[in-house]
Amino acid sequence: MINPPSNIKVLRLSEEEARKIADSLWYRHTDNTVIAVAQDHETKDVLMVASMNRDAVIKTLTTGLVHYWSLSRRRLWLKGETSGHYQYLINFRVDCDRDAVLLLVYQVGNACHLGTRSCFDLGDITKIRV
Amino acid sequence: MINPPSNIKVLRLSEEEARKIADSLWYRHTDNTVIAVAQDHETKDVLMVASMNRDAVIKTLTTGLVHYWSLSRRRLWLKGETSGHYQYLINFRVDCDRDAVLLLVYQVGNACHLGTRSCFDLGDITKIRV
Repeated sequence: MINPPSNIKVLRLSEEEARKIADSLWYRHTDNTVIAVAQDHETKDVLMVASMNRDAVIKTLTTGLVHYWSLSRRRLWLKGETSGHYQYLINFRVDCDRDAVLLLVYQVGNACHLGTRSCFDLGDITKIRV
Repeated sequence: MINPPSNIKVLRLSEEEARKIADSLWYRHTDNTVIAVAQDHETKDVLMVASMNRDAVIKTLTTGLVHYWSLSRRRLWLKGETSGHYQYLINFRVDCDRDAVLLLVYQVGNACHLGTRSCFDLGDITKIRV
């Protein structure tokens, strides 16, 4: 596992703190999830959008490594588990209706499985217009 | 309606172009929607997360004003219709599995109905920790 640079402070909470936050969220989306947006903590680029169920929230907050709920595979998924492209958690923000979270992350390598830094890099419609 | 500054180029497409893009998306989420993330085009702050059905995508792309599908009210919703806090569309990006879109916007006033610029401003867990 690639560690983040020593000047990066990874956010890790106790199990108790993590559970309190997880219990405060509104899992209104598919498979009882909140929407999770991962943003590069430095460049502020939006890297990807995925889903988190309660377990994924707790795992993320206690380990400092971002976990999602995969809607396709219907299982908990440690981001980077196969690619090595982990996301270290720097900050975690909840939105006003508590059904979405914003993850400020230190991204190892590329966020996208297609080999680009962000999952939104290839889909700029002003560049690919019909 | 407050117009954006004259140096801001609002993205507006023809009905035909908008339909092609709308038809290429994967409406896999609740009420046949894609997830929409609105990001300030200048500061890159994430302002809000909401949902868009096919109609909302077409309306957004043809008018240059962001429309969402309200999951709570189950109706099309022009952002700013009551508050005046419109979002002008500057860019529109589709993610790699086509179930999420990133909207680069010029935000009039505050994005959040609670009076903050972003819906994520009050929910920073490093500041409100239990």
